[in-house]
Amino acid sequence: MKFNVLTLFPDMVMDSLNHSIIGKAMEKGIIQVNSINFRDFSDSKHNSVDDYPYGGGAGMVIQAQPVLDAYEDLVKKEGTSRLIYLTPQGKTFNQAMAEEFAREDQLTFLCGHYEGIDERIIDSIVTDEVSIGDFVLTGGEMAVVLIIDAVARLIPGVLKNNTSSEHESFHDYLLEYPQYSRPEIYKGMSVPKVLLSGHHKNIEIWRREQSLLRTYKKRPDLLPFANLTESDKQFLKKYCNYEVNML
Amino acid sequence: MKFNVLTLFPDMVMDSLNHSIIGKAMEKGIIQVNSINFRDFSDSKHNSVDDYPYGGGAGMVIQAQPVLDAYEDLVKKEGTSRLIYLTPQGKTFNQAMAEEFAREDQLTFLCGHYEGIDERIIDSIVTDEVSIGDFVLTGGEMAVVLIIDAVARLIPGVLKNNTSSEHESFHDYLLEYPQYSRPEIYKGMSVPKVLLSGHHKNIEIWRREQSLLRTYKKRPDLLPFANLTESDKQFLKKYCNYEVNML
Repeated sequence: MKFNVLTLFPDMVMDSLNHSIIGKAMEKGIIQVNSINFRDFSDSKHNSVDDYPYGGGAGMVIQAQPVLDAYEDLVKKEGTSRLIYLTPQGKTFNQAMAEEFAREDQLTFLCGHYEGIDERIIDSIVTDEVSIGDFVLTGGEMAVVLIIDAVARLIPGVLKNNTSSEHESFHDYLLEYPQYSRPEIYKGMSVPKVLLSGHHKNIEIWRREQSLLRTYKKRPDLLPFANLTESDKQFLKKYCNYEVNML
Repeated sequence: MKFNVLTLFPDMVMDSLNHSIIGKAMEKGIIQVNSINFRDFSDSKHNSVDDYPYGGGAGMVIQAQPVLDAYEDLVKKEGTSRLIYLTPQGKTFNQAMAEEFAREDQLTFLCGHYEGIDERIIDSIVTDEVSIGDFVLTGGEMAVVLIIDAVARLIPGVLKNNTSSEHESFHDYLLEYPQYSRPEIYKGMSVPKVLLSGHHKNIEIWRREQSLLRTYKKRPDLLPFANLTESDKQFLKKYCNYEVNML
């Protein structure tokens, strides 16, 4: 899978991705990241990419010309793809979106800066406006890196252990149960006895109940989406006095 | 302000932050980032930091010993601070949390990996469990980088133009109006005439209406929190048939 990034800070994107699991996936050629500085496409004298906003106001606006020309050049070389603009105004990125993106052969991201980008860029080439969350960043680069990480890890071969991505939070709308590893007692804190019992059925029951309890305590908004058995529902009713209304 | 990061990939954190606005703030000493590899604190023969989970199951778990010892060493050097663990189970990071964090002198982050961390770490030192969103990453490092970026830009002196951070999305629960910059016509696309009129009052009205329209279309969930005037409400009623219920 190929990820193209149109940015003013191509090194920031590459330096951030070039580590750990994603770095190895790039090395092996399972994913490819193509970071393009749209400043190189500026037709102004000093390669400027921003100018004052029409109508006045604080800050600078990224101009249409360098971005649209960089994109045109990319399409000539790589063909068309979805163009995702990172903006607090977009649809909030989530695991379902990561799974949808992972089905594409190629994705292109556009990182804004300053007070925003010329609206004509959005009107003419952007297919998806995506927000990483309800907070403001100095630029879109780090958000793109996060999205590439979340998408790339779903591509076969990127994670060593494919079962790893199945047992995790969000997969089934229940939070994960607590984990413990050696030693059994550390600084006076013990591992729950059931986990040392070797009794697989009891361990499974304990873990399921811990998942239900945690989800109830920390993210009750997820419970109506979870695939709950009759005994899950009875447990929640008994210990949390919680009645699940399935959506 | 000082940010400490307990991680297995200290270079990933530093390489990601060492660019653009945040890189300059570090250079100037306005912020300080202290990235600590907790593997250096492992008391095992091969500096291992993970082991199988008690009770069985896929993947490995980060052990309590190296993390707790790294934290103890940090407290000796720097004093105590909030310890923020990045996990999909945490409270979702948002602008209000960024503002809260920006009031601290020092913050410490812990990045997990693999199937999770030994629960006794959470029980004994973690003060805040924070999630960057409803999606799964290969590790917490990139999420920490995002949070540091969002927090650092609120610290006086980090952004050049302090008015910049005031006119943006989330500040007042309304999305930003569209921005345009030179040229007036590009590839057949024109700038809205009002922005070229020089009529400041009309520009202000148009921008406010665009903000209201966009928020209504893309993020209607924000409107009940927005500080709306009587004429804002009349506009929303007339053009969107939307009645605002203030929260």
